Amino acid sequence: MDIICLDLEGTLVPEIWISFSEKTGIGQLKITTRDEPDYDKLMRYRMDILRQHHLGLKDIQEVIGTMAPLEGAKEFLDDLRRHTQVVILSDTFSEFAGPLMQKLGWPMIMCNSLRVDEDGMISDYVMRLQDGKRKEIQAFKRLNYRTFAAGDSYNDLTMIHEADGGCLFRAPQKILEEEPGLQIAQTYGEFATIIRSFLAK
Amino acid sequence: MDIICLDLEGTLVPEIWISFSEKTGIGQLKITTRDEPDYDKLMRYRMDILRQHHLGLKDIQEVIGTMAPLEGAKEFLDDLRRHTQVVILSDTFSEFAGPLMQKLGWPMIMCNSLRVDEDGMISDYVMRLQDGKRKEIQAFKRLNYRTFAAGDSYNDLTMIHEADGGCLFRAPQKILEEEPGLQIAQTYGEFATIIRSFLAK
Repeated sequence: MDIICLDLEGTLVPEIWISFSEKTGIGQLKITTRDEPDYDKLMRYRMDILRQHHLGLKDIQEVIGTMAPLEGAKEFLDDLRRHTQVVILSDTFSEFAGPLMQKLGWPMIMCNSLRVDEDGMISDYVMRLQDGKRKEIQAFKRLNYRTFAAGDSYNDLTMIHEADGGCLFRAPQKILEEEPGLQIAQTYGEFATIIRSFLAK
Repeated sequence: MDIICLDLEGTLVPEIWISFSEKTGIGQLKITTRDEPDYDKLMRYRMDILRQHHLGLKDIQEVIGTMAPLEGAKEFLDDLRRHTQVVILSDTFSEFAGPLMQKLGWPMIMCNSLRVDEDGMISDYVMRLQDGKRKEIQAFKRLNYRTFAAGDSYNDLTMIHEADGGCLFRAPQKILEEEPGLQIAQTYGEFATIIRSFLAK
């Protein structure tokens, strides 16, 4: 029995913070972990900016609701879910993912969550696990699943290496150079072919 | 973060073997674990009967494809998936569940699987885990999820007791008497109310 574990942002939907920054025109929200490696500092900065713009969770969800999955992602995922079990493993927050999950047909997602104060402002965030993606793969393996993992970023590498099979999808050149042993896909067609070959083994 | 873990047969869809027996008119397939407690003996008997009737997996899936989820189950599940994560924990086989999962909008399901020979006949079955439902709840708890479990049968009791919250849904009188401490639901409305109250805690 197999479980296919997919990253969300960059793999099925656009990077949420970057799209949000573009949609709202708030350039300060373009900053990512590449610019500020201290994740807690980055999140506190983002929460401050949102508060300054009086953007509560509902406003943010409305903006995220105008975003679309990557072109072809829904069809790719629909086809995969007809043949095997799929779960999305993501570092994002369930409250942000919601509007996009709806557009993807409510696949299962394991991610983190936000705390919202009485004014509807984001007051804090809760990381469910450290290195969650890898631990989730380990958990599925202990439940006797054969696992396949795929994503586009550095935070996907531990799960890809932990899983029984895996690949990179539209990863940046730097990661491709650092991980020459991994299979790579640039289109959903190539992605599906790699997964089908894993499932047939 | 919460995960709601639901039984499949009797909870969201009819008992598959019983419905299959009614649809095909093969009365010998009405036998369940209540009549034959040795599960392996029961499954070998079922596989023999299917072979005698020249029913391969595709024929069986076609018959299962004519079954429908329990009335109201799809709407109940759709609503739940909009608010939280849901996974179906079942002792059935993924090949049997498929046609019904399609009608339920492809929720994630963790179950067992079948082996099919070159003639398309079911030749064997693979139990992924013993006491799988309980072990799956334990795995989600280790991943820092708050868990809720619900079902209608004896094989649901270990997961219900293992989970942080739970209830029985349309359970037989005997189980209700033996488990007076568990919350009970008879309608999907009551079921949703119990789950919402768990999520709000």
